[in-house]
Amino acid sequence: MNHLDHVAFAVLDLDQSIDFYEKNFGFKLEYREKLESQGVELAFLALSNTKIELLAALDEESVLNKFLKKRGPGLHHVCYRVDNINYELSRLRHSGFKLIDTEPRPGAHNTLIAFIHPESTGGVLTELCEYQAI
Amino acid sequence: MNHLDHVAFAVLDLDQSIDFYEKNFGFKLEYREKLESQGVELAFLALSNTKIELLAALDEESVLNKFLKKRGPGLHHVCYRVDNINYELSRLRHSGFKLIDTEPRPGAHNTLIAFIHPESTGGVLTELCEYQAI
Repeated sequence: MNHLDHVAFAVLDLDQSIDFYEKNFGFKLEYREKLESQGVELAFLALSNTKIELLAALDEESVLNKFLKKRGPGLHHVCYRVDNINYELSRLRHSGFKLIDTEPRPGAHNTLIAFIHPESTGGVLTELCEYQAI
Repeated sequence: MNHLDHVAFAVLDLDQSIDFYEKNFGFKLEYREKLESQGVELAFLALSNTKIELLAALDEESVLNKFLKKRGPGLHHVCYRVDNINYELSRLRHSGFKLIDTEPRPGAHNTLIAFIHPESTGGVLTELCEYQAI
């Protein structure tokens, strides 16, 4: 677990944010996807060594919308890449970590993902992801 | 500007946080330093592709302490590496960006750094850094 897969920003308008980062920072849009089940639309911007994920709420009921109302747009979470997400979740659970996802679930880009509760990680919402072979 | 130099977390206790990430996530402490003028003590943890910066306040008056009181510990800022920080600051200023540092100042690790105001970057406190030749 020593590779930062991405840092995620919560944004109000996905198109506008993609345009902002392309125009002002030169980041390239790599991928975008709607995750209806999560109530979010996301975009990945490629940097040379990692990715930025932009996250926008699809509707009022989205969990992300609650975050945006409480904290405003800005830094949302970090995601570390792991080789075996089931192993890591089991290890962390046994170490007393509070997990948001006790089992991995499908994420963007053919990944399995799980979130650790920020109460266990000094206030930093932390995601783990495992890339599955296609 | 397409390399994420680091992501920074505001923490309450630097030693405890270093220990936490070493023990549970396997990150390695690369470097630590007190920046008395900024009222912070910082530590860099090495990942394979980038770094995590842990930031703790040195005293009550530290700007970081105000952040911690308002938002609690957690995600603090992202930092992109640039080749020419003076050029980037000038470019951004001319594009209407609100800069916290209009001129670069010395950062940790023999760098020149400057912060962009989160009002200009969708709520994401954003740092630029240039590594100086030694």
